[in-house]
Amino acid sequence: MAADMLLSDPEPVVRATRTAGRKMRSLLLDAASLLFRERGLSGTSIADIAAAAGAFPSQITYYFRTKEALFVEAACRDMLYLASAAERAALCSDTPGDYTQALVETVTATDSVAFFAEALTLTRRRQDLAPHLVRTIERLHSEGLRAYAAKIERHGWRTLRDADATSRRFWAVAIGVTVEGCAMGHSPDELRTEMFRVLGEQATARSASEVARLRLVGDRDVSVPTQSDREAPS
Amino acid sequence: MAADMLLSDPEPVVRATRTAGRKMRSLLLDAASLLFRERGLSGTSIADIAAAAGAFPSQITYYFRTKEALFVEAACRDMLYLASAAERAALCSDTPGDYTQALVETVTATDSVAFFAEALTLTRRRQDLAPHLVRTIERLHSEGLRAYAAKIERHGWRTLRDADATSRRFWAVAIGVTVEGCAMGHSPDELRTEMFRVLGEQATARSASEVARLRLVGDRDVSVPTQSDREAPS
Repeated sequence: MAADMLLSDPEPVVRATRTAGRKMRSLLLDAASLLFRERGLSGTSIADIAAAAGAFPSQITYYFRTKEALFVEAACRDMLYLASAAERAALCSDTPGDYTQALVETVTATDSVAFFAEALTLTRRRQDLAPHLVRTIERLHSEGLRAYAAKIERHGWRTLRDADATSRRFWAVAIGVTVEGCAMGHSPDELRTEMFRVLGEQATARSASEVARLRLVGDRDVSVPTQSDREAPS
Repeated sequence: MAADMLLSDPEPVVRATRTAGRKMRSLLLDAASLLFRERGLSGTSIADIAAAAGAFPSQITYYFRTKEALFVEAACRDMLYLASAAERAALCSDTPGDYTQALVETVTATDSVAFFAEALTLTRRRQDLAPHLVRTIERLHSEGLRAYAAKIERHGWRTLRDADATSRRFWAVAIGVTVEGCAMGHSPDELRTEMFRVLGEQATARSASEVARLRLVGDRDVSVPTQSDREAPS
């Protein structure tokens, strides 16, 4: 019966191997992330990570080739987790101010941006590590754009600049403020304050009366949501 | 006579020693900057720098203590030079658009921001190096604020956000875009394009009638913000 299954359908075995591989990769990334965040790249060895994950050093080189590649992949994974967490935190915000606050608070609550910035700095002189980072940054930008565009569409907010530029600016400012602030020894609270200050307003809400007034003026340069009750919950 | 001078006024000797010391420091910083930019921190030794400056390794440890401290000081000095160069380049700009363009072009023309970002990343885990960096960032912000405030005052521009936030945002964006772009292997041209996109408009010329008057003059080389470029009136 088992032999029959194997003969007629090799898929379960392949799938089981793949799943085990994915699990081990994930375990190694978890251990690496913890250690790299705490001790940095130079303060962490492959042996340390293997020990923390209950694995052999050869498994790390099998899955990631080098410590540097593992560093970059762990930082990229954590950054994408952070972006998802920020999006979830901002999902229920009803005003542009609340939206920015939710994003900034999520982003400054962990050291994921600092970890990612370390990977970016490393990769500048290690272009062999770039492809993984390039894909991560592209995903960061495209998912940021999608999330922000959906938000302004849903609430009828007036974005102060095009959605793509707004989303790219958010991450550039997050990285810039974090790199500056961490070097200065700033606390997460100070990072948050500085990020708010530097980021400024990203969009404004439009009240129903404002929308009506703008429509009366008939200013064609201003893009006005077509439904005056856009603010109302649907 | 010379003895009289020495007795009555020890200043010239002290001054000569100080001047020689400053010269040697400056020579060492020049050599360090060149090598660090080319090969990075780990690719450069104290012996390399001493050889390039025609000095002894002991002179480096005398003036800077460690290679890392020299790295941070060289990066800080270059960043302040860059800020001055950007300010000079933007001095003659007549419109907010030209002003931003002059700043962005200067900042993306060299690798000073990338070098500085490397120093920032290093200092996150080496807080003993922070004081020099903190002073540099504070100077960057205060001189940026002074230059921008003078510019908007002189031309009567309407800044879209307070001058301090605008100046801080400029440097945070410069650092964020540079760290991201260099990791992705982008060229200076690509960095410049991305920085323009992320930065957006910082100020607008004073009034619509002023803009119209400038348009009548028909000077096409002067980039005048058009109505649609500007924020929609609220």
